[in-house]
Amino acid sequence: MAEKPKVVVLLSGGMDSCVTTAIANETHRLALLHASYGQRTEQRERRAFEEIADFYDVRERLALRFDVFRKIGGSALTDDQIAVPESGEALAPHAGIPVTYVPFRNAHFLSAAVSWAEVIGACAIYIGAVEEDSSGYPDCRPAYYRAFQQVIREGTRPETRIEIVTPVIAMKKSQIARRGIELRAPLHLTWSCYQFDDEACGTCDSCRLRLQAFSEACVRDPIAYRTQVAP
Amino acid sequence: MAEKPKVVVLLSGGMDSCVTTAIANETHRLALLHASYGQRTEQRERRAFEEIADFYDVRERLALRFDVFRKIGGSALTDDQIAVPESGEALAPHAGIPVTYVPFRNAHFLSAAVSWAEVIGACAIYIGAVEEDSSGYPDCRPAYYRAFQQVIREGTRPETRIEIVTPVIAMKKSQIARRGIELRAPLHLTWSCYQFDDEACGTCDSCRLRLQAFSEACVRDPIAYRTQVAP
Repeated sequence: MAEKPKVVVLLSGGMDSCVTTAIANETHRLALLHASYGQRTEQRERRAFEEIADFYDVRERLALRFDVFRKIGGSALTDDQIAVPESGEALAPHAGIPVTYVPFRNAHFLSAAVSWAEVIGACAIYIGAVEEDSSGYPDCRPAYYRAFQQVIREGTRPETRIEIVTPVIAMKKSQIARRGIELRAPLHLTWSCYQFDDEACGTCDSCRLRLQAFSEACVRDPIAYRTQVAP
Repeated sequence: MAEKPKVVVLLSGGMDSCVTTAIANETHRLALLHASYGQRTEQRERRAFEEIADFYDVRERLALRFDVFRKIGGSALTDDQIAVPESGEALAPHAGIPVTYVPFRNAHFLSAAVSWAEVIGACAIYIGAVEEDSSGYPDCRPAYYRAFQQVIREGTRPETRIEIVTPVIAMKKSQIARRGIELRAPLHLTWSCYQFDDEACGTCDSCRLRLQAFSEACVRDPIAYRTQVAP
């Protein structure tokens, strides 16, 4: 039997990237890439990454540290001067781009994934971007990934073929939770909270979106929360 | 008098980026970005960056370190297992992409420049890419920068306007040397050698291209070389 083709999966350690990993695992060999960037919960996210990689028995792992975001600031996730919002207001329709937006963040992660994919001969990059429930981040939309695909075509060796795959981009977060459960993804190992790293806060935008997703999917979120705002 | 608009210049410390800095300095306020990435001569290039920034009296500087390239290898510039070529063969027409190509490197630098530009309100990114004499690197061609421009449009805040400017992309290296002299760019502070950091080797591809450029421009290269191959 021919060996499955290899892909790089960007695995932050959150629910969306965990389910993306589970989807890629159905048809491909995995190489898992983690990016720390000075976000408040980076150590906890890194632990989630390693535990999910252990779960899927993946040896090919690359954990990178990006110092640029701490140095430039400008986001509540990486700048101690900007508080993480807990009101849920940023999730309202037409609320604009929230303060948790990290300027042009995903381009850094995709660039690392492309460089690595080119060296190890991976044919695709899987990324768990979600458009609908993504808080309005500009780098979570399909048009963004189409544009980046063109940069890959122009900027790599002529013989290199690397496709960007965004398997959950059009799903609602509740569908992602359900798909994860169907695929027996290790959701109990994931971490989504923007704020704490011992117990999820339950009140930041990321916790709110996740709790709402599990609630709509009619399944219990397997991780523990400090408090839970009624969805 | 209105303040000049601000731009980010990617300044490696080599001749092309130094002349690009001189060109940007004619019409804009400068914010200078340096990227170390585990290349053999990174400390010497960093010194060139700081000295050129001092020359132009630029306070807004950002020096970043990228650990990804050392970790993944795959290039003679960052992988000790691959020798830097000294034969000049890689510069022959149709020689293909040389082993000094660093996979998808410029996307990392552009991404950092865009993130920083978005935070500090810069309206453009200047990069000293050169197509004709660029050893065939895929990320030195205009089509690549057009594609990346589209990623910036799609991936930043709706109100953000950041243009990529490549003022020397269509020039021959000898024209760049001449333009640098016209603009009184501090070419004596630049560093181009791929191999050594005390005295330029004079035999690597980068030294060969630079020496040839000065020879064609009929001016003396102000830096010292260990040996010089006749162009």
